[in-house]
Amino acid sequence: MVNVGIVGVTGYAGQELMRILSSHKMVNIVKITSKSYKGESFKNLYGNYSHLNYVCDEEDMEELSKLCDVIFLALPHGLASKKINKDILEKTKIIDLGADFRLKNVDVYEKWYTEHYSKDILKEAVYGLCEINREDIKGKRLIANPGCYTTCSILSLYPLVKEGVVDLNSIIIDAKSGVTGAGRGVGLSNNYCEVNESLKAYKIAKHRHTPEIEQELSLACGKDIVINFTPHLVPMDRGILATCYANLNGNYDYGQIKSIYEKYYGNEYFIRLMEKGEFPETKWVKGSNFVDIGFEIDKRTNRIIVIGAIDNLFKGAAGQAVQNMNLIFGFDEKMGLDYIPIFPA
Amino acid sequence: MVNVGIVGVTGYAGQELMRILSSHKMVNIVKITSKSYKGESFKNLYGNYSHLNYVCDEEDMEELSKLCDVIFLALPHGLASKKINKDILEKTKIIDLGADFRLKNVDVYEKWYTEHYSKDILKEAVYGLCEINREDIKGKRLIANPGCYTTCSILSLYPLVKEGVVDLNSIIIDAKSGVTGAGRGVGLSNNYCEVNESLKAYKIAKHRHTPEIEQELSLACGKDIVINFTPHLVPMDRGILATCYANLNGNYDYGQIKSIYEKYYGNEYFIRLMEKGEFPETKWVKGSNFVDIGFEIDKRTNRIIVIGAIDNLFKGAAGQAVQNMNLIFGFDEKMGLDYIPIFPA
Amino acid sequence: MVNVGIVGVTGYAGQELMRILSSHKMVNIVKITSKSYKGESFKNLYGNYSHLNYVCDEEDMEELSKLCDVIFLALPHGLASKKINKDILEKTKIIDLGADFRLKNVDVYEKWYTEHYSKDILKEAVYGLCEINREDIKGKRLIANPGCYTTCSILSLYPLVKEGVVDLNSIIIDAKSGVTGAGRGVGLSNNYCEVNESLKAYKIAKHRHTPEIEQELSLACGKDIVINFTPHLVPMDRGILATCYANLNGNYDYGQIKSIYEKYYGNEYFIRLMEKGEFPETKWVKGSNFVDIGFEIDKRTNRIIVIGAIDNLFKGAAGQAVQNMNLIFGFDEKMGLDYIPIFPA
Amino acid sequence: MVNVGIVGVTGYAGQELMRILSSHKMVNIVKITSKSYKGESFKNLYGNYSHLNYVCDEEDMEELSKLCDVIFLALPHGLASKKINKDILEKTKIIDLGADFRLKNVDVYEKWYTEHYSKDILKEAVYGLCEINREDIKGKRLIANPGCYTTCSILSLYPLVKEGVVDLNSIIIDAKSGVTGAGRGVGLSNNYCEVNESLKAYKIAKHRHTPEIEQELSLACGKDIVINFTPHLVPMDRGILATCYANLNGNYDYGQIKSIYEKYYGNEYFIRLMEKGEFPETKWVKGSNFVDIGFEIDKRTNRIIVIGAIDNLFKGAAGQAVQNMNLIFGFDEKMGLDYIPIFPA
Repeated sequence: MVNVGIVGVTGYAGQELMRILSSHKMVNIVKITSKSYKGESFKNLYGNYSHLNYVCDEEDMEELSKLCDVIFLALPHGLASKKINKDILEKTKIIDLGADFRLKNVDVYEKWYTEHYSKDILKEAVYGLCEINREDIKGKRLIANPGCYTTCSILSLYPLVKEGVVDLNSIIIDAKSGVTGAGRGVGLSNNYCEVNESLKAYKIAKHRHTPEIEQELSLACGKDIVINFTPHLVPMDRGILATCYANLNGNYDYGQIKSIYEKYYGNEYFIRLMEKGEFPETKWVKGSNFVDIGFEIDKRTNRIIVIGAIDNLFKGAAGQAVQNMNLIFGFDEKMGLDYIPIFPA
Repeated sequence: MVNVGIVGVTGYAGQELMRILSSHKMVNIVKITSKSYKGESFKNLYGNYSHLNYVCDEEDMEELSKLCDVIFLALPHGLASKKINKDILEKTKIIDLGADFRLKNVDVYEKWYTEHYSKDILKEAVYGLCEINREDIKGKRLIANPGCYTTCSILSLYPLVKEGVVDLNSIIIDAKSGVTGAGRGVGLSNNYCEVNESLKAYKIAKHRHTPEIEQELSLACGKDIVINFTPHLVPMDRGILATCYANLNGNYDYGQIKSIYEKYYGNEYFIRLMEKGEFPETKWVKGSNFVDIGFEIDKRTNRIIVIGAIDNLFKGAAGQAVQNMNLIFGFDEKMGLDYIPIFPA
Repeated sequence: MVNVGIVGVTGYAGQELMRILSSHKMVNIVKITSKSYKGESFKNLYGNYSHLNYVCDEEDMEELSKLCDVIFLALPHGLASKKINKDILEKTKIIDLGADFRLKNVDVYEKWYTEHYSKDILKEAVYGLCEINREDIKGKRLIANPGCYTTCSILSLYPLVKEGVVDLNSIIIDAKSGVTGAGRGVGLSNNYCEVNESLKAYKIAKHRHTPEIEQELSLACGKDIVINFTPHLVPMDRGILATCYANLNGNYDYGQIKSIYEKYYGNEYFIRLMEKGEFPETKWVKGSNFVDIGFEIDKRTNRIIVIGAIDNLFKGAAGQAVQNMNLIFGFDEKMGLDYIPIFPA
Repeated sequence: MVNVGIVGVTGYAGQELMRILSSHKMVNIVKITSKSYKGESFKNLYGNYSHLNYVCDEEDMEELSKLCDVIFLALPHGLASKKINKDILEKTKIIDLGADFRLKNVDVYEKWYTEHYSKDILKEAVYGLCEINREDIKGKRLIANPGCYTTCSILSLYPLVKEGVVDLNSIIIDAKSGVTGAGRGVGLSNNYCEVNESLKAYKIAKHRHTPEIEQELSLACGKDIVINFTPHLVPMDRGILATCYANLNGNYDYGQIKSIYEKYYGNEYFIRLMEKGEFPETKWVKGSNFVDIGFEIDKRTNRIIVIGAIDNLFKGAAGQAVQNMNLIFGFDEKMGLDYIPIFPA
């Protein structure tokens, strides 16, 4: 059994972590914390827990690091880098669901985000995209859990970039997310009547997941890649669909590309490659850790269109964090994560 | 381990059964059947199963009864009563999610539904509302799994009727359901654009769950009760909310009524009684077997308003069916059912 | 042409007023005002107006009363009674969309709402439910525009109460509203992910529209009526459905009751009586001033179930306000209001 | 006054035509027809018309052409080309909302659609994209009303292509539509619970609006353009958002591109160009004929991202058809179309 703490439990990702970890047979949740809701019953914040008696504690990293084998951080960016340091890492493992340890280049981080407060430990952070960095994650003590859009985008494109079959200057990702991606914060733009029955793009050419995708795809191919990434807000609770475009470098047919995907993902339990002519829909992954990937080649333009789908709160956040925990502690990677997607829901 | 068969697996309730039973540690799904989709891969019907290899078999009750310790029937009304008989019941247990064995009075059944084809076994059917008929269910071989509206309505009102605190002639149930309650059938009235952003009542004074509620409430108090039941269709996937009205027989205060609910449900794991001033919302029970119940007394009219909420596909169908299976076979009643509701979803 | 001012234009009802009045051929909008957004372009608040150049002015009632033939107030309760007085009413007409002048009994107002600041003019206010108080509205200078739930509830029940065919102690109204009814305020309970895919009742036995319904139904029959009113929040933008229950005083059949409805509403353009077996759906009135009413008699309980549907922002607020304006100034009552409901939308 | 007929009035686009034309002050609707619902009251098909008494007549083109100054066809593709011919065109004007007369090249039509039955009149059809082909439309007798996706896509990209500022080989259109785009047909894929809370791409590299966009953009620049077009289904009723990507041919800044858009659209009433940093949302055009267009330049990739939004049933179908009618008959182009978008809805 591992003793687990959650910092920032009251956001949607934190709550999803609670839900998943509560059913994980090797986990003992010893403390959940919240800065804003210290002392509050968790059931008062989330009525789905009304049969359980969790209480939000103070965010005391020192105490948590003594009590816990692993601490999950589910915080707005800029906070994790203040909260952890070498001392903490000597005592416990950290899985950070935020962005603070994802970008290896501090300058890039500070350009897109804010000041970084623990540069000294940044280089030991492992980017926790399990299907790609699995071996590197095992046993590590600081995991940067990938972003939601990035998980979906990178996994959709990785084999193509790695194998060099696409023009690296041609990559465009048109991504769409459900509203949980915006978090539980209060504001007019999150109001039901403002979101419902409408669709918009946002943060065009400015979204912070852009450098994260670029970093990992660049690492895959050994060259610096610059991409276009456009997120959209879709009137639904959960789900991300990434529609990715790239020019093929040669005259590939469907079977050849499919073989490339199978080479990388054929044995990946949580990646489901679609059959020819079939494409992901977010409903088929909801409430699960699955990543569904399908593609089509447009012979007219010699472009490939790859489509990936995930549940942004599950594989895109809490589920992948638990997958990382399983890898760190040597558990079966699927443990506590093997849900059939819930439908209709 | 019990060997399980599912007949009519391709509807929403059948699929939810699959999802729940797949994770039940004492269950071995030996056969799933469908009349319309015989030979079809289940994953072709439900993309959430694309990592699994279930195939729909023929509906052969004879064979199923040999292979299975228990068979779940998820069929339109009128079919189950044709499919099962004493011979079948000698060989296996039946949990029928349809209406054919719910009404003890054949005349009432035939008035509200259609001809009944197995009257001889009707009287051994147990009405599988677990929290009320628990002891009667254990070990039985024919369980009539309650309807979705009825589960929510009966559980909301049972303690009041049983204890005689309300005027039995005054009961009105105004119920609202998500669209999964209409099943996976195809028709204009099920089309997205016809249901979305609208609300309607339907089958007013004619809905077939009416006599089922009346039967169980009448049994509770020993008198014949006639009620009003009005279902509504709400633009959401899952969830039932029943708003129940009744005149109080005397001058009761909140605490007195709360004590009555606690007397009956205080130890029921799947029933969560709300605190004073709090009321159920369907989101807090989604994807779970919970029934949330809250109430208010209106001193101005001396009427009580009781509100119950369930997930219609879970506690209102597949979850309760599995709960019945647990009771029949002597498993822990919560086995395979103890999900924290999924939110937001 | 009448010169019109709008006070509190930035809420959903205020904006709907703008939309309707902009197309009204006898109206000249001379000033729109907002306390919070003084000086702001209206298009910055509502992107649907991006081709128009309205600016929010200061709320200066003195100036408005000089410029305008009629002022619409769309304010939270308690503000209108501070803003208007006899002097204002000497200079202009007032149509108040809020609650301050709806209740004729100040004590009832102050019990359910807050202190009333212009009791002296309260008694000259006319309750602007056009189909019922038409003659009384014409030419008046202070109109209390009815609430959304109340418009739907009163019109659904009025003929039955007026004609004495129902037991006045038996009236229960189970009402359901889309989310625009909650206004454009910001708060967790208005967030998309908290409202979407869920259903709840709220303010049970406490909603402020209760005494308003009671007042008007009591006036209809000359006796004091006490009712139950339970509002629910439905995941959709617009629409109210009121499901009303009452015990019939005798043995009425459908035709007899239908005749009563036709007696009162047969010539009402904006009230559409449904045929036998048909019932209102909110989608059929969206974006219009129509009130759809249907009913059923349950012979088993001798109860009548009446269902009414309106668009809460249109007939339930802005549309009815304009209908009142048309009556005051002697325009065709339908002027600027004769929209076919928009569908699907 | 013009006498108008509608053929195929029972689909969503036909019904929207009815709604718009009913309020058009120069229109007299003389006949509405439906093959499937001949003799049926229109109100039985669409409850929003329950106060009106339209009846669906037989589709008799001969008779219609005598009675009507203009006939709108709202039919599945392949039917219009069978129904009209030179004789018909001698007697009346035709505005075809379907695809049969949009593609000038019969081979392209027959490759993407089906056999064409009136090739002889194809070349006199004018592509009715009003903002671009205005002068050509006036007085004509056969108008091919553009598709929904195409209207939004072409208008978004036209100035860039016309002025040669983008690489013609680099155009990618990632489009998203509400569910009314799928029509009122019945089928599992249109069912509420299959569409709600999910997102998918469909007809990838195969959608029939592709050659239509290519034709018009090719005409704009005088070169053959091949593009990628990927449609997505979004869980909402109305609205199309097109996110368009293209490589810039040089080093343009925002102001330069904005000037180009203003050159073409600065005086277009129905095209609303967004300010810098603002982008279209489908909610701001709902129920209106407006096209909202915004863009951003990504300096990192030197790509432009243009976003367009329309109401697919209004500007994308019925509204534009009426705009074409206004042009044909010399009415004010905005007549009967100048609606402020309805919000929230």
